[in-house]
Amino acid sequence: MRYDFGSDNTAGMAPAALQALIEANDGFARAYGSDEITARAADQIRRRLDADAEIRFVFSGTAANAIALSMLAWPHEAVLAHHAAHVCTDETGAPGFFGSGVGLIGLPGFSGKIDLVTLNAALEEPEVGHRQPPAALSLTQSTEYGTVYTEEELRHLIEPVKLKGCGVHMDGARLANAAAAGFDLTNIARLGVDVLVFGGAKAGANCTEAIVMFDKSLARRIDNRLKQAGQTASKARYLAAPFLGLLESGAWEDGAAHANLMAQRLADGILAGSSFILAHPVEANAVFVRMPPAAHQRLNDMGWACYRFDDGSVRFVCSWATTVEAVDELLDAISRV
Amino acid sequence: MRYDFGSDNTAGMAPAALQALIEANDGFARAYGSDEITARAADQIRRRLDADAEIRFVFSGTAANAIALSMLAWPHEAVLAHHAAHVCTDETGAPGFFGSGVGLIGLPGFSGKIDLVTLNAALEEPEVGHRQPPAALSLTQSTEYGTVYTEEELRHLIEPVKLKGCGVHMDGARLANAAAAGFDLTNIARLGVDVLVFGGAKAGANCTEAIVMFDKSLARRIDNRLKQAGQTASKARYLAAPFLGLLESGAWEDGAAHANLMAQRLADGILAGSSFILAHPVEANAVFVRMPPAAHQRLNDMGWACYRFDDGSVRFVCSWATTVEAVDELLDAISRV
Amino acid sequence: MRYDFGSDNTAGMAPAALQALIEANDGFARAYGSDEITARAADQIRRRLDADAEIRFVFSGTAANAIALSMLAWPHEAVLAHHAAHVCTDETGAPGFFGSGVGLIGLPGFSGKIDLVTLNAALEEPEVGHRQPPAALSLTQSTEYGTVYTEEELRHLIEPVKLKGCGVHMDGARLANAAAAGFDLTNIARLGVDVLVFGGAKAGANCTEAIVMFDKSLARRIDNRLKQAGQTASKARYLAAPFLGLLESGAWEDGAAHANLMAQRLADGILAGSSFILAHPVEANAVFVRMPPAAHQRLNDMGWACYRFDDGSVRFVCSWATTVEAVDELLDAISRV
Amino acid sequence: MRYDFGSDNTAGMAPAALQALIEANDGFARAYGSDEITARAADQIRRRLDADAEIRFVFSGTAANAIALSMLAWPHEAVLAHHAAHVCTDETGAPGFFGSGVGLIGLPGFSGKIDLVTLNAALEEPEVGHRQPPAALSLTQSTEYGTVYTEEELRHLIEPVKLKGCGVHMDGARLANAAAAGFDLTNIARLGVDVLVFGGAKAGANCTEAIVMFDKSLARRIDNRLKQAGQTASKARYLAAPFLGLLESGAWEDGAAHANLMAQRLADGILAGSSFILAHPVEANAVFVRMPPAAHQRLNDMGWACYRFDDGSVRFVCSWATTVEAVDELLDAISRV
Repeated sequence: MRYDFGSDNTAGMAPAALQALIEANDGFARAYGSDEITARAADQIRRRLDADAEIRFVFSGTAANAIALSMLAWPHEAVLAHHAAHVCTDETGAPGFFGSGVGLIGLPGFSGKIDLVTLNAALEEPEVGHRQPPAALSLTQSTEYGTVYTEEELRHLIEPVKLKGCGVHMDGARLANAAAAGFDLTNIARLGVDVLVFGGAKAGANCTEAIVMFDKSLARRIDNRLKQAGQTASKARYLAAPFLGLLESGAWEDGAAHANLMAQRLADGILAGSSFILAHPVEANAVFVRMPPAAHQRLNDMGWACYRFDDGSVRFVCSWATTVEAVDELLDAISRV
Repeated sequence: MRYDFGSDNTAGMAPAALQALIEANDGFARAYGSDEITARAADQIRRRLDADAEIRFVFSGTAANAIALSMLAWPHEAVLAHHAAHVCTDETGAPGFFGSGVGLIGLPGFSGKIDLVTLNAALEEPEVGHRQPPAALSLTQSTEYGTVYTEEELRHLIEPVKLKGCGVHMDGARLANAAAAGFDLTNIARLGVDVLVFGGAKAGANCTEAIVMFDKSLARRIDNRLKQAGQTASKARYLAAPFLGLLESGAWEDGAAHANLMAQRLADGILAGSSFILAHPVEANAVFVRMPPAAHQRLNDMGWACYRFDDGSVRFVCSWATTVEAVDELLDAISRV
Repeated sequence: MRYDFGSDNTAGMAPAALQALIEANDGFARAYGSDEITARAADQIRRRLDADAEIRFVFSGTAANAIALSMLAWPHEAVLAHHAAHVCTDETGAPGFFGSGVGLIGLPGFSGKIDLVTLNAALEEPEVGHRQPPAALSLTQSTEYGTVYTEEELRHLIEPVKLKGCGVHMDGARLANAAAAGFDLTNIARLGVDVLVFGGAKAGANCTEAIVMFDKSLARRIDNRLKQAGQTASKARYLAAPFLGLLESGAWEDGAAHANLMAQRLADGILAGSSFILAHPVEANAVFVRMPPAAHQRLNDMGWACYRFDDGSVRFVCSWATTVEAVDELLDAISRV
Repeated sequence: MRYDFGSDNTAGMAPAALQALIEANDGFARAYGSDEITARAADQIRRRLDADAEIRFVFSGTAANAIALSMLAWPHEAVLAHHAAHVCTDETGAPGFFGSGVGLIGLPGFSGKIDLVTLNAALEEPEVGHRQPPAALSLTQSTEYGTVYTEEELRHLIEPVKLKGCGVHMDGARLANAAAAGFDLTNIARLGVDVLVFGGAKAGANCTEAIVMFDKSLARRIDNRLKQAGQTASKARYLAAPFLGLLESGAWEDGAAHANLMAQRLADGILAGSSFILAHPVEANAVFVRMPPAAHQRLNDMGWACYRFDDGSVRFVCSWATTVEAVDELLDAISRV
């Protein structure tokens, strides 16, 4: 089975990440994130975001998102998110677990982007004691359906939320792909996002994500919070070094640009060489194809791992490691199903 | 500042672990633990334990212990543990967080080993609705004070617990050091431990621990449990490969044997070359020294990181990476404080 | 404002309940449910159900349901329920709070009854680590839309659930109304329900509900569980006595029969004397009317409290306290809007 | 068995409470606390405290305390309390359950009063990531050992806590007894308590306690919080009316004054007529007696329910319902053991 396109977490670490990890391995280092590599990696992220945020490195996006949401919503409150958002569909209820019962309110919208009218309606709903009222909005950039919010779109979604006194979380598991697609990362702080998960794993690191707290009051006792939640690395350098390698070298952006390019090649090839149509605009590193079950099955049988999503389409994801050859081989296979 | 003896998590990855990680980096791999490296590493652990257990790799000992305990005790129950156990003192209440309020009952005992009489008394206490009755026993092997339970001692502690229908958890963050000290790992399953945390980080891996479920019924829907708890690695190979490298090469045991030897050298040197006395028997890789605050401070000032523990003594920990030279330098420093 | 039809919890205690509470007030009584009144009330319930179940009295249906579900599902699992079930819509996420993140999977079905085909589809869904798989089914009898499951319907819903090894919970907040509608209460144990909430408040008691555990293994350490959850009454007689009064006198059934009759009179009157149509069959004590917002508003303005539900219809609920006069006055008002 | 002195929750409702409940039973009332009786009862409490606080009525002290603490401390933080406080010893870990893992730090002190020096030491302890730092102080007035804090004592305990930015909770399950002992209730707001549990059950009500939020920001979305926690009464009048009856009539104070008087009579009688000594000053409604196990057993055998506490003494509690005759009968029994 070939996993090239199954997800962007089937790739290994990019060379820059691995090299930094190897170098970081040398000698003794202070534990629990007080080491120098951790400090430097956080600086690199702050530079990208042009913001003086508190930053911590954790092991998984699931934990990072759930912990971020638990900062913004009490158990008796809820988080607004696209109904197809990773926090809603693919994290086994982690927001409710880390948030001790916090609710999720799924909102609709085309291609993974939250519909503004529905968001406003949800914010306007009168509060009653027997339901969980919204306390935060969760956005994914780039989205689970491979699209990228514009600054304008984000502003319209965030403004009414902040006016209501609610917080804003951004799941940036694929933030590098959004950046490579032209999204200006300095928007994030400017638009009022309170907590960002700055993605590492899908950008070529090992399992490491950064929680970025623009609102520093959210970072109060963050080390206690993370320790209790099982997300404090004793050997913290192994979370920070791959980030450092990717960010100092620019491979974080370059790998994502490559991934997006490969997705574009794949999308173009499918439109040109098959009768399948695309389910969503291809703006980042994922291609969603409307494909009947039999065709999907045949593709799997031909050895290509790929999965059907909630909207019924089949997803192909590219990464820093995707090769032109692999794209062309996949295109050939698709043209033959 | 020199962190050689501050903890056994200040060392890097042992060569065998790093090498395996580098090799595992090649190519695409199925995500979430369905890869071949994960399977092979689990096999290596089962071989060590001579038991057909379910095994999952997670990121941190804190999470591993807390999740294990949440399998054995409901929120309205409690876990019996040594009052100096890591779960009681150093995990920011993680058992209560992952266990949604599960209680901890601290038991006394010399040098980190639970006192049998007190354990039995706790088990015999009449149950009342307004207290959390014990549902499980948590043991640490080797203990937080650097001692190693004998098979006999463990049997006496475990038997009454099992007779009461309670579960048994073993925190094996330093299990390699216990093994190197002569503890037969096949005892663990035989004595009736239900869940073991098989330590990686302190044995020369990166941040990775294995949850070993001897009672397979505990493993029901374990993948859902771990995912919800933020402990599922998308790029699982980076948790399994270092373990595989350590275990296939024997470095897991060799590194621990070296660490124990260095601790012995350190202890011997302190007794021989200073007026300080040891607070606990040195049976594994840690040395606890009765040292007045001023002496401790001077040692810190001389550049040696080391910390005072709850019993008032100062701890020095050795690892696979500790060198004879470093031990001798530290001994020299100690002789001069 | 008149609250006669706003809910069945706007009525006071029925005379038999109040009388029993007054009598129970005399003298000293053992605390925490070890008193004689509690024992006798539990016996009365067991007699109704013809089953040797463990029974505890708690303060609220929200807590009773959530605690019951927490016995049947782990945090990483989910509960199947009608999407309009009280546990899904009106309990502010209590199942997730008491169940530490347990999920709810909403199922469709006409008039509050779960659709069997969808239930089976949910049970057949392949399990994956990143979603919460079902561990239990929650049924409401009578349903939130005023209908009553037949024994046959319940059997078809419960059988596949039990075959999958899942548990079954029944929310019986309005069980008396189901019984009055002809539902044989001895079915509940026979069909395999594991935990029942036997309703008191809506049947003419104060705030008191009984958790009935047919599967006695679920009752292990139940007193600890309830105490921790804030649901242990120190002065337990005030929870048990009203139940005892209602059950020994037969007022539990009689009041519900009266409520159902009043609902029937109301429904008949609406059909006969207005152009409004009913949204759901009237089988218990609630009448749901399709009514445009303006008409609803006018009715409110005329002083009749009544609320719009998720299906868009307006609900009127009768209780033991509803009078023929009130029904006729309301009918008159409805005919004039 | 006679339960007169077993606890102050073995008594029934005082006449004023029962009468108010009976009167409140009449007619229909708006549900969930929007009724007039609830509003009037809250006003009565505010008048006692001379403070414009937000007030909600809940079912149990365990829930009231745990919910109050969950407002003041995050799961990764801890609450400072006397080690013999009800929240530490008698609530089955409810603070950890409602607070999702929040920790408790037990402090010593004579006769249930927290020792100031130890409190200050706990507040001064350097914060580290691997422990739960204090976020709040919990005080009990009158204390679990029947003593009453003076204004001066409370000021000294509260001041350093507030200076650290921590919150203050007061468990007033027996606040009426403290008031009857001369404690000025208007001190509570003035001294900076953030949340008070204003006791009903032990003061002659049924199961009802009031959560009083002086810091109104803590009351944000309190109705959602209580509903989710299973502490919202649908028929709210049954929680408010007994309070209203007790407070409007002055029976809340009078009953407590009587209870204190009976405790004094009991204490005096024991000192005069037996060789037993008192374990603690008798300042409120409880008498703690140093009594060997055999004597305790004989007293139980003679039909008097009474319990041994954590300090080894045997407790006798008086209430509004304790009669002079009962005290004298008990004294007679004690003189004969």
